[in-house]
Amino acid sequence: MNEMSVFEHSEFDGHEHVAFYQDKKSGLKAIIAVHNSNLGNALGGCRMWPYASDEEALRDVLRLSKGMTYKAAMAGLKQGGGKAVIIGNPRTEKTPEKMFAMGKFIDSLSGIYISAEDSGLTVDDLKLMGRQTAHVAGIHAKYHINSEPADGNPAPSTAYGVYVGLKTTVEHAMNSELKGVKVAIQGLGHVGIRLAKHLYKQGAKLYVSDIHPENIEKAVSEFSATAVSPEDIYDLDVDVFAPCAMGAILDAKNIAKLKVKVIAGAANNQLAKEEFGQLLADKGILYAPDYVLNAGGIIDIYHQSISSSDKGLRDHIEKISNTLLEIYHRAQSQGVATNIIANQIAEERFG
Amino acid sequence: MNEMSVFEHSEFDGHEHVAFYQDKKSGLKAIIAVHNSNLGNALGGCRMWPYASDEEALRDVLRLSKGMTYKAAMAGLKQGGGKAVIIGNPRTEKTPEKMFAMGKFIDSLSGIYISAEDSGLTVDDLKLMGRQTAHVAGIHAKYHINSEPADGNPAPSTAYGVYVGLKTTVEHAMNSELKGVKVAIQGLGHVGIRLAKHLYKQGAKLYVSDIHPENIEKAVSEFSATAVSPEDIYDLDVDVFAPCAMGAILDAKNIAKLKVKVIAGAANNQLAKEEFGQLLADKGILYAPDYVLNAGGIIDIYHQSISSSDKGLRDHIEKISNTLLEIYHRAQSQGVATNIIANQIAEERFG
Repeated sequence: MNEMSVFEHSEFDGHEHVAFYQDKKSGLKAIIAVHNSNLGNALGGCRMWPYASDEEALRDVLRLSKGMTYKAAMAGLKQGGGKAVIIGNPRTEKTPEKMFAMGKFIDSLSGIYISAEDSGLTVDDLKLMGRQTAHVAGIHAKYHINSEPADGNPAPSTAYGVYVGLKTTVEHAMNSELKGVKVAIQGLGHVGIRLAKHLYKQGAKLYVSDIHPENIEKAVSEFSATAVSPEDIYDLDVDVFAPCAMGAILDAKNIAKLKVKVIAGAANNQLAKEEFGQLLADKGILYAPDYVLNAGGIIDIYHQSISSSDKGLRDHIEKISNTLLEIYHRAQSQGVATNIIANQIAEERFG
Repeated sequence: MNEMSVFEHSEFDGHEHVAFYQDKKSGLKAIIAVHNSNLGNALGGCRMWPYASDEEALRDVLRLSKGMTYKAAMAGLKQGGGKAVIIGNPRTEKTPEKMFAMGKFIDSLSGIYISAEDSGLTVDDLKLMGRQTAHVAGIHAKYHINSEPADGNPAPSTAYGVYVGLKTTVEHAMNSELKGVKVAIQGLGHVGIRLAKHLYKQGAKLYVSDIHPENIEKAVSEFSATAVSPEDIYDLDVDVFAPCAMGAILDAKNIAKLKVKVIAGAANNQLAKEEFGQLLADKGILYAPDYVLNAGGIIDIYHQSISSSDKGLRDHIEKISNTLLEIYHRAQSQGVATNIIANQIAEERFG
């Protein structure tokens, strides 16, 4: 058996605190990683996933918690980055006892990590954790974006941020309003469908793909979208590509196909490799760094924890535009890809 | 590079919580392990050591924290077992900044781990940590054993516990008082020299070895001890062997040499392997399990954290005798070695 320390893990990379927890009674096995807390306590989702090995769980939590530091810094939050993973199948192995134990684990870290919802967990699961600790966030939605019900789902805020940022990116790259601009949206989930609505209202022309036909039908009937097969979404002769589904879709093959001027979408980790940001720049495509653009959700969760208002939340989300403009100006003047500049600015803020 | 998770570590064995911490500014790298907290928050020493690898540090902290659970349970404390290690050379790499950062790490665990002094750290180092957290113990000595000054050094309590337990073991094995009994003491450090004094006052005849001549001289002149070379300490024709220096000295070779009826000393982890406990039983040697016998120090630290008295501390330490008698009776009736019975009783208490 290979045995070694976490400190030497290739993804450890500057982490402050990584904690392993086992609760024998409930069978919970979980890891919490706090990447950086220079700006404040670490906020990040807790996911439950049937990891093939504990090593895979560790790799995932380290990678994700680091990403949260950058995201929080770029969202202008006084928060650090962290993440939690529960090892197990959320469909067959999730029990209230495990959620209680997870709450106890979070509580033992005295607030240095604040948990939110992520893959495999629901707001109800977070509420079970919340019986053991005050350090869960995103379970008391208070403020409304576009008159949507405040039910704890941050998708309205995420979609609004992506919309605002996409609009700014189009203005910067094309010197154009959204009216008549052609946008291809990949994925019409909670965020993608709301983004479609925002863009439709501004007169954009939509092309949409999704693996669920009912989502396509909704966009076609309500937002006059054109349905596109998932294979064809990269080839379209459109202005904007908005990836709102899987990550790592910006690989060499897909980038070669793209004819767009702008990439601006909600999906996490869109670039298969960081160096593909330069490839996009070389093709004259303006790439809106995903973690800057999709920060509406984390901003929403932050505003749930402070005394704010609908307007306070909305104003904060709209600052995503200012951040993107700062990135685009610096990228232009230095001749460096936007994703690299975003990382640099984040590191200046939390470093 | 080998990479894997802590959960699969061969020493993980039932641990609840293992946390890795890195503070870039001070250069601190440390691990805290909480083995079991069923009886209460985990108390255990923090040591600083130039581990050859992070893996070695992890192995050490996991092994030691588990031992603390057993020790606290057998000492009748409402406390669990934990341990902390700082990776680094205490002579050349110890700084106040690292101690502050360690205090912050301890504090982030919200009291589930309470730190005390261990190898490489002093009470002053603990006091530096104590500026960042309330969860350090053993820095406010309050109660006196045998009129010694309460300076935070738990050696008087440890030595008193070993003395009391040795006396009980001799009574049980030899049906004898200490007067005239021959005791070989290996190691005359803080604990060994105090044990020598207790035994001398009861009329025992002492044989002592130590690597420092000045310690030998003191025992010879003050307690009429006979000096023995370190190589000869196992061969003596005496009644009791009291190991008060290194661990793992009870190996097959040394056990074959021993002619004693009782082994009762302060050293940690005296048995090179658990199965050597049976080897001792087979030779008719009554072995006082080390972690039961040397619990005076942890009992002292516990009493510093509660409202107690000189008498309260003393009475608690003297209960080591009751615990040993419980072990000896059960070992006798079940025909099982005393070290195995001690583990069983501990597991019944904290399980």
